[in-house]
Formats: sequence, structure tokens, C-alpha cells
Amino acid sequence: MPLIVQKYGGTSLGSIERIKSVAMRVARSQNEGHRVVVVLSAMSGETNRLIDMTHQASEFPLERETDVVVSSGEQVSVGLMTMVLTEMGYRALSLLGFQVPIVTDSRFGIARITKIETERITRELDRDTIVVIAGFQGIDAEGNITTLGRGGSDTTAVAIAAALKADVCEIYTDVEGVFTTNPSICEEARKLTKISYDEMLEMASMGARVLQTRAVEFSKKYNVPLRVRSSFTDDPGTLVCKEDKDMEKVAVSGVTYTKDEGKISVVRVPDRPGIAATLFRPLTEEGINVDMIVQNISHEGHTDLTFTVSKADFKKALRLVKDTAGEIEAQEVLGDPGIAKISIVGAGMRSHAGVASMMFEVLAKESINIQMISTSEIKVSCVIDEKYTELAVRVLHEAFGLGKEEVVEEK
Amino acid sequence: MPLIVQKYGGTSLGSIERIKSVAMRVARSQNEGHRVVVVLSAMSGETNRLIDMTHQASEFPLERETDVVVSSGEQVSVGLMTMVLTEMGYRALSLLGFQVPIVTDSRFGIARITKIETERITRELDRDTIVVIAGFQGIDAEGNITTLGRGGSDTTAVAIAAALKADVCEIYTDVEGVFTTNPSICEEARKLTKISYDEMLEMASMGARVLQTRAVEFSKKYNVPLRVRSSFTDDPGTLVCKEDKDMEKVAVSGVTYTKDEGKISVVRVPDRPGIAATLFRPLTEEGINVDMIVQNISHEGHTDLTFTVSKADFKKALRLVKDTAGEIEAQEVLGDPGIAKISIVGAGMRSHAGVASMMFEVLAKESINIQMISTSEIKVSCVIDEKYTELAVRVLHEAFGLGKEEVVEEK
Repeated sequence: MPLIVQKYGGTSLGSIERIKSVAMRVARSQNEGHRVVVVLSAMSGETNRLIDMTHQASEFPLERETDVVVSSGEQVSVGLMTMVLTEMGYRALSLLGFQVPIVTDSRFGIARITKIETERITRELDRDTIVVIAGFQGIDAEGNITTLGRGGSDTTAVAIAAALKADVCEIYTDVEGVFTTNPSICEEARKLTKISYDEMLEMASMGARVLQTRAVEFSKKYNVPLRVRSSFTDDPGTLVCKEDKDMEKVAVSGVTYTKDEGKISVVRVPDRPGIAATLFRPLTEEGINVDMIVQNISHEGHTDLTFTVSKADFKKALRLVKDTAGEIEAQEVLGDPGIAKISIVGAGMRSHAGVASMMFEVLAKESINIQMISTSEIKVSCVIDEKYTELAVRVLHEAFGLGKEEVVEEK
Repeated sequence: MPLIVQKYGGTSLGSIERIKSVAMRVARSQNEGHRVVVVLSAMSGETNRLIDMTHQASEFPLERETDVVVSSGEQVSVGLMTMVLTEMGYRALSLLGFQVPIVTDSRFGIARITKIETERITRELDRDTIVVIAGFQGIDAEGNITTLGRGGSDTTAVAIAAALKADVCEIYTDVEGVFTTNPSICEEARKLTKISYDEMLEMASMGARVLQTRAVEFSKKYNVPLRVRSSFTDDPGTLVCKEDKDMEKVAVSGVTYTKDEGKISVVRVPDRPGIAATLFRPLTEEGINVDMIVQNISHEGHTDLTFTVSKADFKKALRLVKDTAGEIEAQEVLGDPGIAKISIVGAGMRSHAGVASMMFEVLAKESINIQMISTSEIKVSCVIDEKYTELAVRVLHEAFGLGKEEVVEEK
């Protein structure tokens, strides 16, 4: 019998009524002949409520104890779901992280799964039990409760699907799947039927927040087919899977953007070895992640170096860089928080020439100036003035034909 | 170093502020040179909130899953308390039922503790850690979460104190200790300095709801000195301990009452063997507990049989008894829910003659008719008309000199 792992997020579990409607969906999957494992997040709002309490209790809440408090949220949802399923006449059992067990390292709050014992789950599945597992939580070698970090329930689901060699891992959320771009700024946006792991990774890290990057990486590593779909409709959603021939037919699968970054330019730096290292060391020490970095060829022994950091880190990063600028004899440091990063993503770029230049032309036609460019195998990103974000997304979406019927469905 | 187990109930943990003030008290105990184990209930209202959710989810919530949901309440309070203590500069660690472990049988919702592993607790205490343990919860041999039933945190505390051979187990609540009677109906009521386990058992079962009967039984069995005190004041509270000579000096330690019962009389039953068995069998089958039972000598081959049941069971019991009455040829069945049971309790009764008759005289003087009487070694109970409850309590309290300075303090 095919094995399915279904993960339901907080918005799918926002009330007892929602839990009951999710239970019907779970039951239907079993009726249709699947063995079913369910992974649940905390009911919506619950994790925030618990985290707020830890912050009221302590200025710097102890990580071990934060995990003890916060993991109670999933504990409540699996208990409730299991009793609902039982009342509906299904055999169901809840398992917490320590009961599976889902073994992790001891990095409280950001733990990594090291091992999942499948024996208990398999035994229950063999008895036609619907196994309801608490997402987000695990246990370390000393028996301490750990959590996997925000959105960790996706990772739990994928890891369990991988461990059980499930046929598919369904991630239920409040959107119908992965879209070519954000439908709220481009009404032509269309749901994708299929997308590759790599494309999804580029989309996810750019703010298409339907799936945790880590969960996608995990699925890719263990080749677990993921289906992103809505718990509010019967739409089949988007399948995230290994790249296939169909995908190569399409040059670009989606347009994504983020306004969450700021740009810092270090102007006229003497072009000597070790300059970049000196500049970025203080940022690394403060835990600030640098995203795009662009350094041009040097003129008269000087170069300009520009990079982006998240808006949350922007002020701090600017101060640190200004402190270092004197040391490396840079002429000046400029900061600009008013930028957006627009990206086009597509596995087909590998086989389609001219994708990047078409992007530049489309933007030029609208007189949108490109401030920075960076490319990867399946993505081209441009930094532009923030105010052009929506316009850029719409014209790129149109130019790459993303509003049309999907090619992969035409086979 | 003396070892102290402190249990704090929900009202002592009603808010983050209350948790912080309890943490100060805990810290003070360690500063004073104690090794300290803390046992916590859920924050006040939390257990009810969780139970409500299970009832919204299911008409007959599965017991195993109810325990999963409900035990999350204590999980939150131990995590918060531990982070507060840590922030105050103390070494502290939370332990859930499964982490101690506190092993129980598998009777979900009403589990009994079968074993407490002390190794982990002792190791932590030896490092000067304040060990913060979740009350009310345990784990069975299969790794399922169990709970001990309402008020089970008292039992957890006493069981841990017994297992660790603690010098004292302090039960913190919102009252200052055990009183000679309910201060809200008798302003002369006085806090007792000391009371024996047996007296406490009689008081507790009669509605002096400061301590769970089961916790007192446990303390008696393992001879754990209990101190009932308030978390809102520095009053030393009431010590519950083995009976000592001082206690025998006092005939009566307290007057208790309950209005929670109803009376059922079966009139003119043929006095044959097996009548009582026939009468009570249906009640037992429905799980209805019978409290006082009085059967008088028979007249002309007939007898009257009267008993009390809780008000919650009263209607059902009356119906069942009426069904059986025909079968055993009783003349009629009378029900009266408007009664109160008044009791005087005192270890000293064993050595003081005439306590019961003094009680009857005091009630007679106020023209309060006694409907039923039952006695134990250290208690005399009378059923009277409910409307005389407060009057009876006050006159008995006065007559037995309970408002005066306590004799045990005069040594």
C-alpha cells in the first residue's frame, strides 16, 4: 500500500473546527488506500503565544527551556487530532518527538535531525493506525527536548518521509501551491504544476514562503517527492520533484522578489589581496549574513565593492563597514536600504541561451536601472530601486510568458 | 544539606509575575542552605483550558490523548520557572515526567506512580542545581504519557519527597494552612500549627480542599512530613506529620462539613440476608460511591436503611434504588438532597471520652435534629438539615474550644 506523509501547518489547524476538517482529509487518504502518517505544527498563533511567555519570563530565555515550553504547542495539536480521528472511527495514535524517537543534536532551538527510529511508526502503520506525529520537536542523546527552528515541522515531515521511504510528502498550507510569482502584485500569476527541487530552493529563499528551504534541501537529498497544496481546497497543488525533461522546455518558471535587503557600497577601495576578508570579518563575527556581493574590475588600483544584507542587519552592518573603511583606506561608504532584488528562476536556463539578456532588456524598456547583477545556474537576480518592484515583476512575468498555459502540461 | 521538596499549585503560578515571585522564594530556600526540588502544576486556568479543548474536539475524548494534551500545561510552567531561576543567577533544570522518569501504570487520567528513578535528580542536586519537575504527569512502561488525575501534582511532590527521603515536602497554595474550620463561615476559625496524617485525611475528604487525600495517604505511608503553606505570605503554615503526644491533648482539631451529599432512605425493608447487597449492587455497577450507611435494628422483621451519595449522583441513585425497591419488597424510598454532613475530627478522641455525646448535646441545645450518625476512631459525623450547616459549625467550633490558643503550642 502506498505510504503518504501529510504535514499540516498552523493555519490549517487554526481552530477545533479546522482540526476536524483536516481529520476528514486525513481519513479520506486512508480510505483511498494509503498508509498515512500525519505531521502537525502547533495551532496557529500558539507558538507565538508561547514564545511571548518566555520573553515575559526572561530577557534572554534559556534555549533548553524555551524548547521545553514551545514544544508543548505541537503536543496539544497531535493529541486533539488523534482524538478526533478516533471519534470518527479510525485507529490513530499520537507520537511526540521523544516517543518516535526523532533524535537530534543538542543545538536547542536550531537542532538538526540525526536519526529517526521508524520501528514504532512502521509497527503502527502495519495495524492500519494513522500515526500522528508532533512536528518541529526532537530529543537529543541526553533525553532533552529540542526544536528544529521555525518552520521545522516541514523538515520533520520530509525527514520522516525519507526515513519511511514514503511515496510522497504532502505539505498542506493556506495557499494552493507554488506560483509563478506573487499573485497579490501580478494577477496573471499562475500556479505551477511541477517544479524542480533546485528551482524551489531558489524560489523559497527569495520569499516564496510556502516551504522551508531546509525541508526542500532534505527532500532533494533523499529524493522525496513533495506536494505543496492547500488544506482548504482539493486542488492538487504543486509537485516539487527531481528535474525532468519537461522542465527544460521552459526557460523560466517564476519571478520572485524581496524587499528585505539593503545595499552597502564601499567606494574606491585600494585593490589589494585581503581587502574583502578584512571588510567582511566584522560582519561574520556579528552573525550578519551577506547575500549578493559584486566587485568590479579595478581602475587605477582601486575598485568598488557592493553587497546586500537583510534590512534587519542593515544599520549595524553599515556602522561596522564604516569602522573598517578607514582601515582599508576606502574613499567612502554608501548605504541604500531602498532596494529590491528581482529574480527569474528556471531549470530551463541551462539549455536556453539569452535568458539573462532578455531580463535586462525588459527592465531597460521600462527604464528600470539595474544596480547589481548576480547569476547562478538557474537564477538571474537584479537589484533595482525598490519603487519599481511591482512593475518589474509584472513585465518580467509577461515577457517570459508565465501567465500562459503551462508547457509541462502539454505533453 | 537538608533536602526540601516544594510544590506550587496553579494559583501560585497564575501569571509570569507570580512565577517570578515563586522563583524568589525557591531561590531563598537554596540560599538558606537547602537542596531544593520544585514540583509545579500548570498555570492557573491552563488545565481547564486544555480540557475544554479536548471536549470541543471530541464528545468522549480518548484518555491517552487527553493526557498528551493536558500534560502540556505543566511542561510550560517548568520551562518558564527554570528560565526565570537561571536569569536570577541560579543553576536550574526542568525535568518532565518522562525525563525523571516518573513511571506509572497505564491508567490514563488516573495513573498510579509505580517507580521514581532518583538518579538524575540526585546527580543534579549534587551540582547545586535547583531541579524543577513537572507535576501531575508520568510515563508508563510503553513510553506513553500518563497523568495522575486532578490535584496529582501534590502526589508527585510527595512521591518525589519519599523517593529522595526529603526532610520536608512543602505544599504551597493560596491559603495559609489547615484551619479548625472554614474561616468564611466561622470567624473564630484558627490555623492549626500541626495536624496528624489521619486527621488530615478526615479533613481532606470532608472538603478542606487544601491537600489531595491521595497525597496525604502517600505521605503517611512513607512518613514524609508535609507542610501546607501559602505562597503569598511567610506564614509557616500547618505541619502534617505523624501523631505525637501533643496532639492527644486536644480532643478535637477541627470541624468540617459538606453540603455535597444527598440522603436516600429505604423504608420498611424485610430484614433478610442479602438485602443490602441487592440494593447497592446497581449503584456499584454505575460507579456511584455510597458514603454513610445506617441500618437500624429491625422491628417486626423489617428495618430501615439510609445512606448518602454525592449530589451529582443523587438523582441517578434514587432512580436505581426505586427500581430495586420493589424487588426487595420495601415499603417506600425517600430521597432528600437538602442535607449537610457535619464532622468533628481529632486524634485526641481516642483518649478523650464523651466527645461524641458532647457533639450531640451541642446540636440538641440549638434544636438541630440529627438524622444520621457515623463514627470512626478519630471522627464523628452527623447528618443534619442543610439550613443549619453554618450554625452547627459555629456552635461546635465554640464548644470544643477551637477558637482558643492552640494547646500544642504551649509545651
